[in-house]
Amino acid sequence: MPSYDPNNIFAKILRGELPCHKVYEDDKALAFLDIMPRAPGHTLVLPKAAARNLIDCPPDDLAHVAKVAQRIAQAAMGALGADGVTVQQFNESAGGQVVFHLHVHVIPRKTGMPMKPPAAEKEKPEALAEMAKKLSAALG
Amino acid sequence: MPSYDPNNIFAKILRGELPCHKVYEDDKALAFLDIMPRAPGHTLVLPKAAARNLIDCPPDDLAHVAKVAQRIAQAAMGALGADGVTVQQFNESAGGQVVFHLHVHVIPRKTGMPMKPPAAEKEKPEALAEMAKKLSAALG
Repeated sequence: MPSYDPNNIFAKILRGELPCHKVYEDDKALAFLDIMPRAPGHTLVLPKAAARNLIDCPPDDLAHVAKVAQRIAQAAMGALGADGVTVQQFNESAGGQVVFHLHVHVIPRKTGMPMKPPAAEKEKPEALAEMAKKLSAALG
Repeated sequence: MPSYDPNNIFAKILRGELPCHKVYEDDKALAFLDIMPRAPGHTLVLPKAAARNLIDCPPDDLAHVAKVAQRIAQAAMGALGADGVTVQQFNESAGGQVVFHLHVHVIPRKTGMPMKPPAAEKEKPEALAEMAKKLSAALG
């Protein structure tokens, strides 16, 4: 597996060089909205550690990411009124990975509403800002 | 969300009332092969805690499951020679969940080989036994 590339787009977001619609942040993790959501509220959870994916992530950073993903799933079921949540995490191109900094997709679901295909449609910034506000408020 | 039903099929596997092709076990988690794999080596990782899904799982049990899923993904890349790994976890019917005990799908991937649809085809018991042996050996 190639080593970590610090110029990937999520590393730039983590360094504040690119903006994001932030949902949650602590010393070890950052969560923000996917700008091409497969469903409303589609959130990405990242470790701040320089991890390419699940294979090279320090286990304790991964464990923390899992706990943050859980809190976002709970907020989706609560504040967003989701009926379910789909979680996905892709490793290497063969596994579906496109950006090479570990990230967990947390996708709120509604009964009878299929997910959009990946990267199908860019959401409006205002809609993302509103959603980020709602989710981050629910996370306290 | 409905409460945990101790008669789900994975609870029966955890209690030893039904068999499985075991890949890994410790005091807090069990991992075994999906009998209808979406790709060879498709493994399910479960907490032993009575958790319906991501929403109600004790956070430390979830964190442990994430670490076990990581070890299985690493074994898939190593011992199985996978080119990537796809991880999925479904919550409630709207989120794609079918069996209501929390489980994480760890799916080894090969370049150019799409996943089979869910529950498409039952794998032969001998092939599952051979695969479980290979993966559990790689996990030490």
